[in-house]
Amino acid sequence: MLPFSQYDAAGRLRHLITLDGMSRDQILELLERSRHYLAPNGAMPIRTRALEGITIGNIFNEPSTRTRSSFELAGRRLGADVLNLEIQLSSRVKGETVIDTIQTLESMAVDVFVIRDAEPGVTQFVAENVYDHVSVLSAGEAHLSHPTQGLLDALTILQYKGGFRDLVVAVVGDVKHSRVARSAYQVFSALGVGELRIVAPDALMPNAGEMPQAARFSSIEEGIAHCDVVMMLRVQKERMTQASIPDSAEYHARWGLTKIRLGLARPDAIVMHPGPINREVEIASEVADGPRSVIREQVTNGVAVRMAILETVIGNRRLRGDHR
Amino acid sequence: MLPFSQYDAAGRLRHLITLDGMSRDQILELLERSRHYLAPNGAMPIRTRALEGITIGNIFNEPSTRTRSSFELAGRRLGADVLNLEIQLSSRVKGETVIDTIQTLESMAVDVFVIRDAEPGVTQFVAENVYDHVSVLSAGEAHLSHPTQGLLDALTILQYKGGFRDLVVAVVGDVKHSRVARSAYQVFSALGVGELRIVAPDALMPNAGEMPQAARFSSIEEGIAHCDVVMMLRVQKERMTQASIPDSAEYHARWGLTKIRLGLARPDAIVMHPGPINREVEIASEVADGPRSVIREQVTNGVAVRMAILETVIGNRRLRGDHR
Amino acid sequence: MLPFSQYDAAGRLRHLITLDGMSRDQILELLERSRHYLAPNGAMPIRTRALEGITIGNIFNEPSTRTRSSFELAGRRLGADVLNLEIQLSSRVKGETVIDTIQTLESMAVDVFVIRDAEPGVTQFVAENVYDHVSVLSAGEAHLSHPTQGLLDALTILQYKGGFRDLVVAVVGDVKHSRVARSAYQVFSALGVGELRIVAPDALMPNAGEMPQAARFSSIEEGIAHCDVVMMLRVQKERMTQASIPDSAEYHARWGLTKIRLGLARPDAIVMHPGPINREVEIASEVADGPRSVIREQVTNGVAVRMAILETVIGNRRLRGDHR
Repeated sequence: MLPFSQYDAAGRLRHLITLDGMSRDQILELLERSRHYLAPNGAMPIRTRALEGITIGNIFNEPSTRTRSSFELAGRRLGADVLNLEIQLSSRVKGETVIDTIQTLESMAVDVFVIRDAEPGVTQFVAENVYDHVSVLSAGEAHLSHPTQGLLDALTILQYKGGFRDLVVAVVGDVKHSRVARSAYQVFSALGVGELRIVAPDALMPNAGEMPQAARFSSIEEGIAHCDVVMMLRVQKERMTQASIPDSAEYHARWGLTKIRLGLARPDAIVMHPGPINREVEIASEVADGPRSVIREQVTNGVAVRMAILETVIGNRRLRGDHR
Repeated sequence: MLPFSQYDAAGRLRHLITLDGMSRDQILELLERSRHYLAPNGAMPIRTRALEGITIGNIFNEPSTRTRSSFELAGRRLGADVLNLEIQLSSRVKGETVIDTIQTLESMAVDVFVIRDAEPGVTQFVAENVYDHVSVLSAGEAHLSHPTQGLLDALTILQYKGGFRDLVVAVVGDVKHSRVARSAYQVFSALGVGELRIVAPDALMPNAGEMPQAARFSSIEEGIAHCDVVMMLRVQKERMTQASIPDSAEYHARWGLTKIRLGLARPDAIVMHPGPINREVEIASEVADGPRSVIREQVTNGVAVRMAILETVIGNRRLRGDHR
Repeated sequence: MLPFSQYDAAGRLRHLITLDGMSRDQILELLERSRHYLAPNGAMPIRTRALEGITIGNIFNEPSTRTRSSFELAGRRLGADVLNLEIQLSSRVKGETVIDTIQTLESMAVDVFVIRDAEPGVTQFVAENVYDHVSVLSAGEAHLSHPTQGLLDALTILQYKGGFRDLVVAVVGDVKHSRVARSAYQVFSALGVGELRIVAPDALMPNAGEMPQAARFSSIEEGIAHCDVVMMLRVQKERMTQASIPDSAEYHARWGLTKIRLGLARPDAIVMHPGPINREVEIASEVADGPRSVIREQVTNGVAVRMAILETVIGNRRLRGDHR
């Protein structure tokens, strides 16, 4: 068997499992396509019938998330049918029953699976086992990958900074456990960001060898100095403990993005966060709601990116002649 | 900051948080508009594309309610996209995270929020914090307000009685804890109902000073005598206890609407209930299912009223030129 | 009151509660109609607007099932609005509140109820209490009935075998507790299957007198010998215990469909299973995934059958002039 590839024989995107290995041109093309789905201010969201007749299975292991809503709206605004399913696929991994669940939906003519699961490998496993005409899109996989988040982050930077080559970008917080950080690392490396920094307490820094092109900082002040982009990560209680930080207040004192600390970055630096934010923990409210924050624009861009990805994989299927 | 208003600068309805302070003309115009959405008997439900391109976020703190279904169908029959979200907003009220949740959905181009929450103030709080082009509709707020219920109750009375001025209307049961009763009081006062009565055991009567225009009765027999409209309220076990009524049977004996008691009202009196009914508790089955009951018509009117409200707030937005 | 009938005065299908008593011609007509909804290989699923303006209430007592998804997609691909409701109707059966729930939805102009419930009699009870223009479709009722499953099983056999008269069909496993087996028995009897066998451990065999036209086998080897169709049933842990079979491995050893056992059937025998399958319990993976398995085709046929049923009951309503 060939090693798994998320591209088809012609090298076109079929699944979206990871940004790892994606070329600069492929990414820029996706970002360009995403821009088409951004309504000029004051307009209704862009809607097309491009995916009329297509069925999307939105499989999430949690009842309701922003990413689920984003994919649901992306699909519907392209005219697709979206079937929401709250299934813990990985709890079914015993034997082959995850595949049975997927094959059942495939047999009902589901064309695209959007999968959020906590178990590493589930999305690729599904992608390896679907019909040729079916696509699988990751909506977040364990701590490993969140490719549509990486793309929406890149789109946001492109919007505000016009490019990537001259930028200093800092990813700050619990980098070790973050799928957002991993996808960001991949997309920013591919795009040739000028300087990429990961900024974290030692205990929350990825293992040596991971993210080799990033400069490592164990102080937030040094890490964000002269940055163009400060991307904050969500932190969880148990990770603070792991980093010997007793509570949220202490985390904020040592690692929170405050207005004062933001003063160390470039005057026109933008502040990003994948959400949901912990106010007064990893980020001060006055920063999250301040003039440099582009957090809400990231959410808007998320719908656009997901529309672009859906249109791309179905368009590529049509190019292959897989008309099922 | 200006005090909160649910009207825009031109005085047109933008949010629907309460019926308190709404004028007779405003209410009658909404009822008139609601009538357009009532199919003549034998016809399919009225459907339009008036809200095509509009996204409604249906945020309920409970898995499945009649009101959620009513709003969902109202939105879809106008051509809108409806996103169902089961979120306990009030449990997020710590810090500002309720706003973060709302802003995230706003950033995905949700145009209207329909909110059911158990915490007083949440719907207004949301309305105070959304973009200018966004509307917030209460689907029931704590014990305080259930404005679409009040409107559907008024529409039902208009349908069966042709007006309000000459009517005697009794609201019977646990008035103290009822958002339905409060919205009914507000709408009936504004419409100038001839005589408005609240009829309840002492322990379930609102505090002195509340509902000043209503006459108070502590006997159901006296309260419903010669009434044109008897509106029963749902009672809960713990409220009976509070009123020193040991059980449902005893509540029924003392406060249930039986056929005999209904004989005290006018011969053409109608019986209303917001549902779900407790049979043989606050209402006898032979009354609920009898010829004077308009309980099912209330449900039908509920969809029409919600269609009218949705069309109104979006129409008013278009008049303001908030085309987002 | 007339005894309940799922047919209207003209003898046309109005509800689908059971296949019991359905004639060969009625069944064949439904199967013929189902074929219209099977896309030729390589095509998009068939979509029409035949049910535009129709609202389907999908009431399931479980969060997410294949049957729910199948009915949801069937309804949407016909242009209907589908309202998903997770309600345990039977837990409401006290008093008449199951009817109150249904009547509330009826009053919102729900036209068709699709009901899955664990309590025997609930679907018929609902069907006896709805408006003349409303239809009720069973999506699985206790251990008694699963009529759309029976129809999809028949459609699958028709597809692969071209008819029924000359076939030997074996239904194997926990026949006693299976609604799938009961609906299969009814449909195969009506269609005049050549020889119908039920094959089960004694403790899982239906009571004497039930399924009188089926031959009984207490050995799987004898039961599937020379069969054209082997229909396996899902087995549950507690049923094994009831049959004095200690565990899944032992069940597989005694009652599992293995490749070797399948060798006893006709060389062109097909293998069916309603899903979800228990791999290496009632069926070996090499059989479930093997060339004789038509399990996935059954799922595809399920959507087609449900589209045909929905179109039929609404079509019959139009013929009656019940235009609501």
